[in-house]
Amino acid sequence: MASAALAFCLSAQAATADLPALMPLPSTVAAGQGDFELAPGFTISYASKPDERLTAAVARTLGRLQFSSGVALATAAVVPSGGSLAITVTGTDAAVQGVDEDESYHLVVSPQGIQLKAASVVGAMHGFETLLQLVAFRDGKAVIAGATIDDEPRFRWRGLMIDVSRHFEPVEAIKRNIDGMALVKLNVFHWHLSDDQGFRAESKRFPKLTELGSHGEYYTQEEMREVVAYARARGIRVVPEFDMPGHTLSWQVAYPELGSSDGPFAMPTTFGVHDEALDPTRESTYKFLDGLVGEMAAIFPDAYFHVGGDESNGKAWLGNPKIVAFMKAHKIKDTEALQVYFNAQLLKIVAKHGKHMIGWDEVFTPGLPKDIVIESWRGVDSLSAAATQGYQGILAAPYYLDGEATAERHFLADPIPADTKLTPDQQKFILGGEVAMWAEQLNEVTIDSRIWPRAAAIAERFWSPQSDRDVASMYKRLWPISLQLETVGLTHISGPQKLRRNLAQSQYPAELETLASVLEPISFGERYHLQRTGTLTPLDRLVDAVVADPPSRFEIGQLVSAALSSGSDAAAAKQALRKRFQSWVDGGPGLETAIASSPRLADAASRAQQLVQLGQAGLQSLDALDGKAAPSGWKDQQTALITEAAKPVALTRFTFLTSLQKLVDAAGGK
Amino acid sequence: MASAALAFCLSAQAATADLPALMPLPSTVAAGQGDFELAPGFTISYASKPDERLTAAVARTLGRLQFSSGVALATAAVVPSGGSLAITVTGTDAAVQGVDEDESYHLVVSPQGIQLKAASVVGAMHGFETLLQLVAFRDGKAVIAGATIDDEPRFRWRGLMIDVSRHFEPVEAIKRNIDGMALVKLNVFHWHLSDDQGFRAESKRFPKLTELGSHGEYYTQEEMREVVAYARARGIRVVPEFDMPGHTLSWQVAYPELGSSDGPFAMPTTFGVHDEALDPTRESTYKFLDGLVGEMAAIFPDAYFHVGGDESNGKAWLGNPKIVAFMKAHKIKDTEALQVYFNAQLLKIVAKHGKHMIGWDEVFTPGLPKDIVIESWRGVDSLSAAATQGYQGILAAPYYLDGEATAERHFLADPIPADTKLTPDQQKFILGGEVAMWAEQLNEVTIDSRIWPRAAAIAERFWSPQSDRDVASMYKRLWPISLQLETVGLTHISGPQKLRRNLAQSQYPAELETLASVLEPISFGERYHLQRTGTLTPLDRLVDAVVADPPSRFEIGQLVSAALSSGSDAAAAKQALRKRFQSWVDGGPGLETAIASSPRLADAASRAQQLVQLGQAGLQSLDALDGKAAPSGWKDQQTALITEAAKPVALTRFTFLTSLQKLVDAAGGK
Repeated sequence: MASAALAFCLSAQAATADLPALMPLPSTVAAGQGDFELAPGFTISYASKPDERLTAAVARTLGRLQFSSGVALATAAVVPSGGSLAITVTGTDAAVQGVDEDESYHLVVSPQGIQLKAASVVGAMHGFETLLQLVAFRDGKAVIAGATIDDEPRFRWRGLMIDVSRHFEPVEAIKRNIDGMALVKLNVFHWHLSDDQGFRAESKRFPKLTELGSHGEYYTQEEMREVVAYARARGIRVVPEFDMPGHTLSWQVAYPELGSSDGPFAMPTTFGVHDEALDPTRESTYKFLDGLVGEMAAIFPDAYFHVGGDESNGKAWLGNPKIVAFMKAHKIKDTEALQVYFNAQLLKIVAKHGKHMIGWDEVFTPGLPKDIVIESWRGVDSLSAAATQGYQGILAAPYYLDGEATAERHFLADPIPADTKLTPDQQKFILGGEVAMWAEQLNEVTIDSRIWPRAAAIAERFWSPQSDRDVASMYKRLWPISLQLETVGLTHISGPQKLRRNLAQSQYPAELETLASVLEPISFGERYHLQRTGTLTPLDRLVDAVVADPPSRFEIGQLVSAALSSGSDAAAAKQALRKRFQSWVDGGPGLETAIASSPRLADAASRAQQLVQLGQAGLQSLDALDGKAAPSGWKDQQTALITEAAKPVALTRFTFLTSLQKLVDAAGGK
Repeated sequence: MASAALAFCLSAQAATADLPALMPLPSTVAAGQGDFELAPGFTISYASKPDERLTAAVARTLGRLQFSSGVALATAAVVPSGGSLAITVTGTDAAVQGVDEDESYHLVVSPQGIQLKAASVVGAMHGFETLLQLVAFRDGKAVIAGATIDDEPRFRWRGLMIDVSRHFEPVEAIKRNIDGMALVKLNVFHWHLSDDQGFRAESKRFPKLTELGSHGEYYTQEEMREVVAYARARGIRVVPEFDMPGHTLSWQVAYPELGSSDGPFAMPTTFGVHDEALDPTRESTYKFLDGLVGEMAAIFPDAYFHVGGDESNGKAWLGNPKIVAFMKAHKIKDTEALQVYFNAQLLKIVAKHGKHMIGWDEVFTPGLPKDIVIESWRGVDSLSAAATQGYQGILAAPYYLDGEATAERHFLADPIPADTKLTPDQQKFILGGEVAMWAEQLNEVTIDSRIWPRAAAIAERFWSPQSDRDVASMYKRLWPISLQLETVGLTHISGPQKLRRNLAQSQYPAELETLASVLEPISFGERYHLQRTGTLTPLDRLVDAVVADPPSRFEIGQLVSAALSSGSDAAAAKQALRKRFQSWVDGGPGLETAIASSPRLADAASRAQQLVQLGQAGLQSLDALDGKAAPSGWKDQQTALITEAAKPVALTRFTFLTSLQKLVDAAGGK
């Protein structure tokens, strides 16, 4: 590990400095001996007969290459050998992609041509994504930047979980997110298909699950198969999750006999932990699960099957005398032990249908067989504890996007931190990590902007060497990659922009754009606490039209650091800050007008005044730094202003307050 | 007609002045006695048991109402009577919507509630669209503006034709355009499914049509049925077009025996008129057509079937001795007469499968039965000629969107102009009109921005009274409606914006936005001439990222008129113009940098310099108007500058040159 990391430090970071933005960073990169110029006449050759998946991937790659380069390449000819892009796939991919698929690839770009070699089609597809990121414009020409790249993932399991229960997502939204995953080399789509608020997978054996438990919003079996095929075509596995024994209200609405309480049950409009759970004491429950798991196992060919298992609080069990009697008769001491019992039965069912079982932390209980996989929402310590006992694990906790945290914070959280106590052998039990996108506070309009581009920074954490921790480098690459993510169909920039146009009822709402660029949503928890978000809460307000960690936070932070330094760029940084602060002041009147004319913006009224005041504070700070002494009491006033502005308003917070406070402190301290 | 028009002038135009933007304008509107306030607790009632289509339309309406009002309405309860929205549908819709469907509706909004009455579900759905446009914010409250509206369309046939052959459009793109059509009350989706460059409809009888003639891009039969159902759910008919006997190269690639020349044939990469055509002299051709028309007639339930018929130049026929011999033997004097012969056979086939035949102008030839419908790409005179002979017709010529003309020009073109020579009885033969979107120069990324919002202005021409010709009123309503069109899924604003971000490789390309806001594409013909556009031409340049008739043209025109008037708003107009011109000057350096770093923008380099110079010309004009005399020769210099700037560069033209010239003339003339 140490030597690999060192090689990365010496080569990849240095070599990539002259390259276009690569994300995730390859494990090793060596500078090239010259670029390959893209021009009509571009050809492809294959070392051996390509399969259908490979030729489809090549066609997509050429289309995207044409789009990003502006050179007509989409109809490049296939030649017997010596193509501009020569592709060698040495192995044969398994019919169902496994967790141990060889995803490595070797890419050499020189003026003479592009050589791509991989052991699998999946590896080759990763190579195509890197190739697409290497497009550059040099001396007025579109080129693939010269480089030699040897690349393989650090972790085998690099997932994105999407909850489609709390809010449903149409197939198109799923597909474009799969395209985004492929772009940053994520390889597991974890599909959270059921929860209290909706059962989203059509069952022909148990049709009431969607008839009564989905509000009509669900995937047909054909659609699920289509998603599986779409993902496979992009080197991505699909792991379905059916969360049980808790989080099953939608099941119980459909089939009340599954419940631990007397029905009837109703579809909830609230979120959070509901007390209801499947009855683990009845044989009929397991018969039902055998049918359901069997049916779904046939649709999802992946070797893994996720059974959830989280947040079952046992209250419904303790409220049912029959269940209490069962516990007594079977010497089950508490509800946790009852869940162990349930899991043991469930494991048999899952295994019977040829799958490995995965569950959230709660399924990790003493005595469980070693072939289950723990997905940890509790954190790296919980995961390490499982690994020391020989259980495989996946880390999700630090990658919950609904915390609305920064890309930086997610990026720095490591499934195996540098100071891990795990031995190298124990480390092998950590399969990787998963980005988790819970859906209480998003819908199909906003999902992309909640996931991207932050998930790209996490994808780098899962793929690239442990030593890759340069936050400035990460951000510098994140913004261009974010633009590329929109070209594969995601709407994380255009979606919120559209919503802002709609909020302001203006084709070019310049002042609202200025405000929105320095706001971000408060965290899931804060919002939930303030708003009591439920399934019926409209998700079309300012908070839904701004994104976590927009460029402004890091940009202003960098500018303030530079302005306060004695470096050569201090003057330029001050000028850039002055321009920015002035735009806040200038935008004030227009912003107030816009807000006043849209009730859906009404709760943001004070933000308009604050932005003007904060802009003035910034300008005054810069004046003070330039020698115009601030009046007495000024610093305290500005600090009070910043403190006030830090409170959530319109469910949003400003992105730049820490940096502005630094500026005020420096200015007031003179 | 005259009295209806008068009523409209007196009531609708006046009454709508206080209402939110309505488009198309209803035939009669009377001011209301107060608004209906939207609040939770909103209910629905039906006078009689609603059918599935109506309840689905109500559910969509409530979702959109919630989105636009910000009030939680999506789960409004249905009550037995006296609902906040009381819906009465008096008739029963036909299983297949006909051209004579009663589309009228009667809508009364008062503080007590909303009454909607219609003879058909289609009419009710038009009422819902009007209702959605009546949402307003008054005194901080979301309301449906009070009004009494009696509305019905002027024309029965209000179409949008989309060519999916020259460039394919995925089903999603078709669906969102159907949603856009519904919003502005268009009622016929004319699907141009085949042409030289691609046969897009799966045939199970003749599978090679798509296997060899579509580059793999086509609609399955299931998808076509899905589109038909989706359209029906929105009150829209689907008329398929299979263009023949010319424009059939893709057919002949699949089945060379259909051709008039010896094969083999190749899929063309060029546009324009190709010489190839079906062989009209062989029985086997008609046997094939009988099979194909029969198969497609079963998929498309509409009573009409479009057979194209345009631009068949006869060259392939004259080049085939057998065909020439056939003509001689059958006393067919020329190739036009041979097409008449072909059409007569085709008509029998179409009629056999229970359909009325439609064709472009060329099918209008002496002796044809009266139940064919002529769609005119030649113009209103051609259409009137057909009507005087008792043929039904549809006008398409003035509504070709690829001319990149203004919404104003399209809006003012009338299928039955005020000075028509047609008698009232003859006028009845004019069924209506169709917006035509040919696809040589667009793809799935740009199609929405080529169609919308201009098609909304044309939809008003087809729906609203003939007397509705106030261009300023039209534009004032067009921009808010344009925003609403994006909320049903269209991407005509966000799509080009995304492309501009990609072109500039910047998340906020402010200077490119400024330039793009005053540019529009040159016309199809100009672009074709300059670029020789073919199927492989990339459509991802500046010309594809700007739109016809953006707000700037009309806005600057209005401001210049006001500035040059002696009205009270002259000073404000000058100030607004000054701000705009200054932004062009200020943006210059940033724009040059952006263009220099993107090869796909390279051809726009001179536009950056021109924008700065034109901004300076504008500022100097304003200075001169304010009394600062322009130097000698100034006016000639500026005029030369404007003349030079009027030449196409980067396949674009400026939107404001006429207005700027007016300003220069006025300034120089002092």
